[in-house]
Amino acid sequence: MPIVSEKGRSMPESPIRKLVPYAEKAYKANKTVYHLNIGQPDIKTPVAVMDAVANHALEILAYSRSEGSEEYREKIARYYHSKNIMVEAKDIIVTTGGSEALLFAMGSIADAGDEIIIPEPFYANYNGFALASGVKIVPVISKIENNFALPPIAEFEKLITPRTKAILICNPGNPTGYLYSKEEIHKLATIVKKHDLFLVADEVYREFVYDGLKHYSILEEEGMENYGILVDSVSKRYSMCGARIGCLVSKNKEVIHTALKFAQARLSPPTFAQIASEAALNTPQQYFDEVIAEYKDRRDTLINLLKGIPGVKVGYPKGAFYCIAELPIENSDDFAQWLLESFDVDGETVMVAPAAGFYSTEGVGKNQIRIAYVLRKESLIKAVKILKAALEQYPG
Amino acid sequence: MPIVSEKGRSMPESPIRKLVPYAEKAYKANKTVYHLNIGQPDIKTPVAVMDAVANHALEILAYSRSEGSEEYREKIARYYHSKNIMVEAKDIIVTTGGSEALLFAMGSIADAGDEIIIPEPFYANYNGFALASGVKIVPVISKIENNFALPPIAEFEKLITPRTKAILICNPGNPTGYLYSKEEIHKLATIVKKHDLFLVADEVYREFVYDGLKHYSILEEEGMENYGILVDSVSKRYSMCGARIGCLVSKNKEVIHTALKFAQARLSPPTFAQIASEAALNTPQQYFDEVIAEYKDRRDTLINLLKGIPGVKVGYPKGAFYCIAELPIENSDDFAQWLLESFDVDGETVMVAPAAGFYSTEGVGKNQIRIAYVLRKESLIKAVKILKAALEQYPG
Ligand SMILES: Cc1ncc(COP(=O)(O)O)c(C=O)c1O
Ligand SMILES: Cc1ncc(COP(=O)(O)O)c(C=O)c1O
Repeated sequence: MPIVSEKGRSMPESPIRKLVPYAEKAYKANKTVYHLNIGQPDIKTPVAVMDAVANHALEILAYSRSEGSEEYREKIARYYHSKNIMVEAKDIIVTTGGSEALLFAMGSIADAGDEIIIPEPFYANYNGFALASGVKIVPVISKIENNFALPPIAEFEKLITPRTKAILICNPGNPTGYLYSKEEIHKLATIVKKHDLFLVADEVYREFVYDGLKHYSILEEEGMENYGILVDSVSKRYSMCGARIGCLVSKNKEVIHTALKFAQARLSPPTFAQIASEAALNTPQQYFDEVIAEYKDRRDTLINLLKGIPGVKVGYPKGAFYCIAELPIENSDDFAQWLLESFDVDGETVMVAPAAGFYSTEGVGKNQIRIAYVLRKESLIKAVKILKAALEQYPG
Repeated sequence: MPIVSEKGRSMPESPIRKLVPYAEKAYKANKTVYHLNIGQPDIKTPVAVMDAVANHALEILAYSRSEGSEEYREKIARYYHSKNIMVEAKDIIVTTGGSEALLFAMGSIADAGDEIIIPEPFYANYNGFALASGVKIVPVISKIENNFALPPIAEFEKLITPRTKAILICNPGNPTGYLYSKEEIHKLATIVKKHDLFLVADEVYREFVYDGLKHYSILEEEGMENYGILVDSVSKRYSMCGARIGCLVSKNKEVIHTALKFAQARLSPPTFAQIASEAALNTPQQYFDEVIAEYKDRRDTLINLLKGIPGVKVGYPKGAFYCIAELPIENSDDFAQWLLESFDVDGETVMVAPAAGFYSTEGVGKNQIRIAYVLRKESLIKAVKILKAALEQYPG
């Protein structure tokens, strides 16, 4: 019998998916489960987006251009201009989600055995894309004690080898909610220029920034034309995760030329989703103001309540809609499973994402969980109450 | 300045895309261009497919399950049953086009440096997926003289090494139109069992088979549970290439488990496109009867006319909607370019796909082109007339 690939075997299951069978048990036991575990917002997609698709007038659902339709890319460029990111349509390749942009970025800059340095904890699926591309992730640890700020430059430089091809950051961060300052981006720009590396920034949560802070993109930083690669997505921005549209952006012509070859091999991004995403670009600022106010309110509620639980330490998210919490337990995998299998308060329990899957250093993050605040405030309040009760009763 | 990856640099541009700048020149010169070069059918998408999307009632465009929605996969399984392919929903992963199914298949069965044997000429994008996955394609040459029939088993066995992981076939074939017989599939099944290899079959053109012949799937063959991996797509079947939905099918649990990890990393296939593709499964047989009659008529017209041109040799396609023609010229890249740049008959010219890009053996296929019969009969007749005149006048 033929066997599957080594990379397939070593690819970790998503830290969230591993719990799904236990969640199904909980449903079967008629428990209500509060999902703090996934990044699927409960926010409504703008009506204009849904209408654009409902009103489509296509007769043949044809391939679009591999790099995305010209009109859509022109419009994306205008969106970036409004964010002080000076790129043109030719610098943009439309992808099937930010996920595909990450895959194209890794494939375009790194060969099998090459290394990419990533501050951890990081978005768990970077592991999957790296394994698929044969790329080695080299983690640099950021700490909950420092609220997951950028590790000192010296820590990065210690890790650079002849095989290092890039530094990859997520800004604002999933799972930390950390927002890099202009100074931190400038520091990163300095290292990549000094060592001839790419700086890849996953900015899919760009819009979700709180407390009057401003997001600073790597492509706003001067002199990053040849070094910067931006990964973006409509998924969270307009709560349209199911569209599967993102983009890869770079002023480096060679990068775009190379990524385009990957894009051509898979023919084109989805057509209906491009119609939806083009319409999404007309979303008025008011939509974001409301959504951001909502997330901020949830964050404040969540963080305050978590801080009130004895033994819980929590990072303070300045962006995105996640936070990492350290719990007074040993193993959050076991705890998360126990929450679903063996615990409830009046028939209700919570599902959280164990944080070890967001670290690639073995053993780190075992007492942490990631919480996504994608539920309404009342649900969050209930969920944290349940979590508190659970920690009091947990035998582990 | 950091440089792009070796694999990115060595990835060939699509044989079709290379000509695009010359096509643009032709448009600028106000020439009419008959596109025989691409696999984008002119057939209308079933109205019910378009209506299903227009009538969607979603409020939040959420991620679907990574393996595709349960209902849709159940329905796909029923479609396969009607084709005598006995698989269940759990054996199916919905992908973003057949393209992604190919990528998942390669990633799941082969590591960097592993080899996959493919009869050539083959679908040019197999190169891109192989490069992205670090996999080496080992071609076994099929010949126009034999109408691109399966090469003798001995030819395959000569190429098998300890690194060989699979044989990949396309049935019916793009670019050859060749349809493998039941006996040929049986022969392949015998080799893969003997040598413990996977047999991957790209059957995206399954429905397009002429002359009363019957398509025989690798999953109809007995004892292929552990060996067979099917790649499929709605793109051509329902003329909905822009949907970007396909699937990977296998009874091998380890393969599905592994491919699912790749699928989870990219989160989910597009939601609107799944709505469209689910509706497509209700397409009545009459639609296919009409489309197949149309393609058959085009094929007969095209092949007869091509045979009438002095010095032209042509394969006889029994399926799909492509054929390979050998021309009395030296270099079809130059010829295709010349057609666009320097030739016209009353302001009209043709665009063809040079066939060298469909071979991975250096130097083979240089005097061949691929023609897609995705135009109405009258246009095909005109296009072949232009081709004939061009061959008479070509100075190269
Ligand atoms: C940090 C980060 N990057 C990328 C993605 C990929 O999202 P998508 O492929 O839906 O754009 C996600 C999704 O959760 C994410 O959290
Ligand atoms: C042989 C073959 N396989 C796979 C594909 C991929 O098609 P898609 O990704 O649209 O399903 C094509 C498209 O032309 C093809 O010709």
